[in-house]
Formats: sequence, C-alpha cells, structure tokens
Amino acid sequence: MSGTRTGESMLSRHLRILDVFGVDSAFLTLSQISRRSGLPVSTAHRLLDELERERLVERLPDRSYRLGLRLWELAARTPGALGLREIALPMMQGVQGAIRQHTQLGVRDGRDVVYLERLSHRDAVVSATVVGGRISLAASAIGHVLLSALPEEALADLFASGIPRYTKRTPQTLAEVAAAVTEVRARGRAVADGLVHPDARGIAVPVRGPEGEIVAGLGVVVPNDGRDPGPVVAVLRRAATGIEESLRRAYVAPGHPHALAGARYRPLINSSTSSMEYFDERGRAGQDRE
Amino acid sequence: MSGTRTGESMLSRHLRILDVFGVDSAFLTLSQISRRSGLPVSTAHRLLDELERERLVERLPDRSYRLGLRLWELAARTPGALGLREIALPMMQGVQGAIRQHTQLGVRDGRDVVYLERLSHRDAVVSATVVGGRISLAASAIGHVLLSALPEEALADLFASGIPRYTKRTPQTLAEVAAAVTEVRARGRAVADGLVHPDARGIAVPVRGPEGEIVAGLGVVVPNDGRDPGPVVAVLRRAATGIEESLRRAYVAPGHPHALAGARYRPLINSSTSSMEYFDERGRAGQDRE
Repeated sequence: MSGTRTGESMLSRHLRILDVFGVDSAFLTLSQISRRSGLPVSTAHRLLDELERERLVERLPDRSYRLGLRLWELAARTPGALGLREIALPMMQGVQGAIRQHTQLGVRDGRDVVYLERLSHRDAVVSATVVGGRISLAASAIGHVLLSALPEEALADLFASGIPRYTKRTPQTLAEVAAAVTEVRARGRAVADGLVHPDARGIAVPVRGPEGEIVAGLGVVVPNDGRDPGPVVAVLRRAATGIEESLRRAYVAPGHPHALAGARYRPLINSSTSSMEYFDERGRAGQDRE
Repeated sequence: MSGTRTGESMLSRHLRILDVFGVDSAFLTLSQISRRSGLPVSTAHRLLDELERERLVERLPDRSYRLGLRLWELAARTPGALGLREIALPMMQGVQGAIRQHTQLGVRDGRDVVYLERLSHRDAVVSATVVGGRISLAASAIGHVLLSALPEEALADLFASGIPRYTKRTPQTLAEVAAAVTEVRARGRAVADGLVHPDARGIAVPVRGPEGEIVAGLGVVVPNDGRDPGPVVAVLRRAATGIEESLRRAYVAPGHPHALAGARYRPLINSSTSSMEYFDERGRAGQDRE
C-alpha cells in the first residue's frame, strides 16, 4: 500500500492513521505511522497534528504517539458495544466465578466476531481473545452461535473469499461451517474444539434481544479435554437468560408499566437500583430544562 | 451555539457531530443532531453520511442514529484507557467482592476525573459514576487523589473558572480543595462525604506507575454513614499494590530479566499466563515477518 488513494475523503485519511495502531503496536513513531498507513511522512505529520489537536492521539515525551483518551470517551457512548457490555457484565462475573477460565461476550461485524468483554483467570487455558479484537466467525464457538441467526445463502457470501486457518481443525469449507451451524440450531449451543489453538475449547450460547433476535454470543474458553460440556452450558444458559431479562427492561420505554427506574439509560448504564433512580431524576430534570 | 465556526477543520466538524451523543442521548434523529451540534440540517446530514460510510455512526431502521462499533474498536487500542483498565480489572473484582458497593477506576483529564471502569452491586448506594463519564476533580475522592500529584499553582489554574455544585457539601473554594488535597498527601487516601450526592461517600487511594507517578485513582462509593474508613482503605491499598505490580511488569521491556511472558502486550492485554505466552510467540513470529 502506498501513496494517496484518489478521491479519498479527509475523514478516511484521518482514520487510516488511527487504524495503524493495534494491540501489538499501541505506541508508534512518525516514521512507523507513515510506513504502516502508506502516507508520505509530511502528510502523516500534518494529519497527526490535527488528530493531536482534537485529542484523538496523544504525543508522548519520547515523541511516539498513542491513541487518545477522547476516542475512548466517545466509545463509552456506543450502545452496540459498551452498552451491551454494561448490561452483561454482572452475569459474566457470575459465569467467571463458576468456571474460572475465560468468559467472553462477542457480537458479529461482517465475517468476524468482535469481542466486547473478556474476564480471565491467571491459570486459565490459552485464549487468543482480546477485548476489541476479532476472530473469524467460522473459527469460534461464539461465531457459530452468531452465524446460526443467518440464512444459508448468507454463509456462502460471508466465506466466499476463504477462512483464515488458525489450526488444522479450523473449518475451511462452507460444508464444515454449515454443519457447525446446524448443530447450534439443533442443540442451542456451540462447542468448538481446538479451532483457534489446539489446547482450547470454546463453548457458547446465544443472547437474544427483546424481539428474539440474536444480539450477542456468550461463551467460555476452557481446556480442550473432551469432557461433557453439559454443566458449562447450563451455567452459560442461566447467565444468558439474566442478560436477556436486563435487555428487555432496557428496551422498554420509560413510561411503560414494566419499565424499571432508569430504563431510558439502561442501554448504556447498568448500576445499582438507587443509582438508576438518580439518573432517572436527573434525566427528567434535564428534559424539563430543554 | 449556532452556525459554522470560521476556520473550523473538517475533523472538528465531524467530532461536533459525534460529541452530541451522550449516555442520556445514545439514539438521536437528524433534527436533534442538527439542533444539538448547531449545524444546519443539510450540513449535519452530509457529515452523518460520511460518518456512516466509515462506520463511526450507525443508522437504525427507525432512521435514528447511534455511535458505531468502529469507534469502540479503535478505543480498545487506547493504552491510557482500556489498557489500564485491563490491568486493573482483576484487582477491582477483588475489591468489589469484599465491599459489594461500587468499585471504580479514574484518571485525570483537564479538570475532571474520567471513569475507566465501574463495578456495581444491585443493592449498592446511589452513585453518579458512568463508565466514560466525567465528574469535577474537586468533587470526587478519586479526584482529590489525582489532584494530590499536582503543584499548588496548578490547583488555582484548574479551578479559576469555578467548580460545579452537586450538593451543598461540594467544595466551592480553592481553600477547601487545597485542604482535601493536603489530607490525601498526609494520609495517603481520600474520604469524600456527600460531595456528589448526600447519601454517598467516596473513598480512594492512588495507583502509582513504575516511576512513582500517580497514574490513576482506585476508589469505592459506599453509604455515607460516618463509619471508620480504615478497613475499606486497607482493601483498596492491597488492590492498588497489585495493580502497581502489574503496571511495573507491563512497562518492562520484553528482553529484561523481570519481564513476564507477553510483557510487550501488557499495556493493552491482561489474560491468563498461557495466553500471554501465546501472544508473545505470535508477536515474535510477526516481527520476524516484518
């Protein structure tokens, strides 16, 4: 990749700069940013100056750059990510307390699972999951759960350009993916042995929104030891039911008889009952002023 | 606010659109966005189109807009926010298990605390904290801890334009803030009774980076019942020490004898030992290819 794409908007050039930062490259110098973005050093420098003025990147004393706190503040108001994660976190803590491996929550974006949250134990089995990271839908138990919501044709489209191979067990054909999806539909859970790492097994169940649609997958990564997944599935199902209940309350309009205090805020905040009442009062006061 | 500021960059206009979304306004229509941003409807519409193309906003079936998943993916690579939160989360869970109220982690940005994480219990006391939200440094126990790192002159500058009044106990003068800061320096912890809500008390301790600098405040919100804060402070100090230890390991270069597996990634990822080794191997393989 090099030079400037013709007709590229300013916004997309700024995003090309932000996109070069990764979990394995959180701190970068100007020349690294220029090389990774394919933009000339002078252009990258000018764009970084603008991004720094807006606090989207921060320049450190050693002159390297990192992504800025303002990005994260904006992201905290993203209902599809942190909102869902706020609602799910207490139930995820329950799962993590029972299983003590890795507990994770993922949503679909294109052909990938994007992980919204992960809780881990120091002695847990190996897992490749990173909060904010991606793994192919085809290679993950949560992915299989999310795929089970899609019609067959959609599967073919999604994987027309192939599937990344993490291990020799990662499904590589549409037929293998379809078989996994059929099993999720039949049994209401996914079990994926060694698809990302030979030592790890993913187990996942769907989390459904108020209309019955699958909004996320809730899963654990445990040792790939061939044990009966039943007890783990039972723990996950109980937690998913709890999340679904909170989601239903979150989506009920505040005037509705079933609405809890703070219902209007629930998609983004999930705090104690008295705090939700407080947010509610504050919100009403704000509306009165408007 | 109205019209277009002269000389305003495209980037800052896009950000004006993103900034109108809040935790109490996560879903907005075009006309609400136009009114709140002070931009004409036609301009707001064009900017929203560009933001939607880049997946920074999402348009819902009812034609309202919300912030998009891509913002959150970018934010997950922000070392100053999610990186620190990843490291602190296991220790925060320990505090939350012991105190069962609200446990929170905050950093300073300008004159505010920005909250990186909050764990809550359903029956906990009222708290105004929202993940990604802000409260004046002057009004919060974590704020007082963060202020204790600054020289006296900096306090005067920060609060030259006044302090928001949440309750009648919120400090309003520089002298009151300075007294709170002096107490933090003397006793190594902050106790703030009823500064944001009359029923709530904040207790917080500093979290120090590898060079001894205060990088964050770790605190709880508990009932404002006048009890001896000593036992809570002891729990917080133990947790802060654990976070400081992980931070030190995170900032040691990977070749160093004290570095743990995955040290290079630690500022952003904190998973099980075997997962960190896996990231480390993958990282080395990536470097070899570069």
